This record gives sequence, C-alpha cells and structure tokens, in this order.
Amino acid sequence: MSEVRRILGIDPGLNVTGYGVIESRGASVRLLEAGIIRTKRGQTMAQRLLELHNGLTEVVEAHHPHVMALEQLFSHYQRPRTAILMGHARGVITLVAGQAEIAVDSFEPTKVKKLMTGNGRAPKHQIQLAVKIQLKLRSIPEPADVADALAIAICGHHESRIGINLRNSL
Amino acid sequence: MSEVRRILGIDPGLNVTGYGVIESRGASVRLLEAGIIRTKRGQTMAQRLLELHNGLTEVVEAHHPHVMALEQLFSHYQRPRTAILMGHARGVITLVAGQAEIAVDSFEPTKVKKLMTGNGRAPKHQIQLAVKIQLKLRSIPEPADVADALAIAICGHHESRIGINLRNSL
Repeated sequence: MSEVRRILGIDPGLNVTGYGVIESRGASVRLLEAGIIRTKRGQTMAQRLLELHNGLTEVVEAHHPHVMALEQLFSHYQRPRTAILMGHARGVITLVAGQAEIAVDSFEPTKVKKLMTGNGRAPKHQIQLAVKIQLKLRSIPEPADVADALAIAICGHHESRIGINLRNSL
Repeated sequence: MSEVRRILGIDPGLNVTGYGVIESRGASVRLLEAGIIRTKRGQTMAQRLLELHNGLTEVVEAHHPHVMALEQLFSHYQRPRTAILMGHARGVITLVAGQAEIAVDSFEPTKVKKLMTGNGRAPKHQIQLAVKIQLKLRSIPEPADVADALAIAICGHHESRIGINLRNSL
C-alpha cells in the first residue's frame, strides 16, 4: 500500500488567506477540506494576525498535515508596501508550521501554473478549472484564493510522488 | 502617585531582534531588562520564527508590559527582499502582542532619532549615548539593536506622558 500524506496548501494574505488540505496516496489525490480565513479591515494588525494564527492552527489541529506548501518567499511582490504586509501574514503562517513541526515546501507561482495547466502565465479561471478536474470536484473552487491554495497543495503532491524538482528551499 | 506603565520597545529583525523593557512613572523612567533574541542562520524560516516567538513570549510573560512600541510599518525598507524578511519577523512580533492583548504603538525612525538626540538623522552611537543618559546606565547599551529598542520604548514613555503626537497607527 502507498503511503498516505496530507498536504496543506496555503495562499497567504492579510485580508484573505486561502487554504486547502488534500490527501495524497500514490498517484491519487483527494480533497479533505478547503476554505478561507478572512480578517476584518477595521481591526488592528495584531488582532488580524491573531485571527489568522488561530484559524490556521485549527485547520492544522483538525488534519495534522505532514507538509505545508506555500508560494516561494520572494515571489512577485514588486512594491515594498505589498511585500511587508504579505510578509506579516506569511511570517505568522510559517510560525504555525514551526509550532506544529510541519515541514514547509515552497513553490514558484509560475511553476505551479505550468504544472497545473501547461502554461506558466495561466489566468485564475484556468487554475480553478485544473483544480476542479484533478480533485474531481463537482464545481469550480471559489474564491480564487481557495483554488490557488489547492493548486499549491497539488504541486506538493506531485513533487513528492514523482520527485520532480518544483520545490525551492526557504 | 503617578501611574506605572511598563513599555516593551522592539527593534525587529530575522537574525537579531533587540528588545528593552522600561518602567515609566510620571516623568521618570528606568530600565527593567534589555537584550537580544538571536536566531541561527542555518535553521529553516519556521524554526527561526518559532525561536523569535518563544523568546519574545518569555519576555512578555516575565514583565507583562502595557504597551509594545515598534518602528512604523513602512519605514525605510527600500528593497522588497528586505521588506518581506522584516515583515516575517515583524508579523510574529505583532502576533505576540495580539496573543498577550498588549496595545501596539508605532513610531517613525526619524521621529525616534529626533526625540532622542534633536537630530532626525543621528548616527547609531548618538542614539546609544542618548539612551545611556536618559536611563542613567553605567555603560553604552550594546549591541545597537538593544539601544534602538530602548530608544523606541523611551518614545513610548514620552508619547504617553506629554501627549506628543509621535505615534502612528498601524
């Protein structure tokens, strides 16, 4: 029997963080749970990061994933303002992995898109469609943050399965 | 009798985070504890953030500060790489404040320097000297990360005492 691995994919954001947990067994993969953690704009940064931390910790405690899959650290943040806000959220998410002793794998966004669709610049709806097909879902995963999180999780599945070098170290 | 407030100043960094706890009572201020939390370069990001989180949580549990004083969010990070690394550390630090229900005040670096020395572009050794004098220390606080953390804490003290508008909201 093939080894079962649970992979938690995350699309980080301060307003909305998408997450998706999949179960990988040999070549097959299935959805366990996916959703978003949304924080309120009117709250302080500390309150928002606390909600993100608590929400993600609940997901981790419910599913005990073996791996957390994230976008690569320095991906496509052109502006320092965006980079530092994203960094706050990504720091708290990475901390959750450290607290639960879960390994973190990171993937370049263009490689995620290429693996899912054959096109490194695929638009969001193509990613959503590819996730629907690969996980045999009945409908398109919504919002796009959930599809992105699941796409990253599926990359974690392929990476471990066929040993392709999608991973980038932190 | 004047109200006693404990202020935790922090100079955030992924490699070295400086911290300083001061006690503010009316016009007077004194040092309670200061130091650095250093993380190892060879470790993963998750392990480093975990050490930072655990180290800072220990400081908070030892002193129960009323306020955490930090550099302003978008201060002087010109490069996205620096901004996102700083963001990871600052996110975890801000989370600790959220978990302990400590208010976060933030200050522009130029205002901190101006308040401490009269010069918004003062070099590090002038900040160190000003901290030594204001806290009546026997020696210059070392390393500079500790002096910077104490300077930010002292700004928190003056801000609350005389109501000057140094603070910037997050």
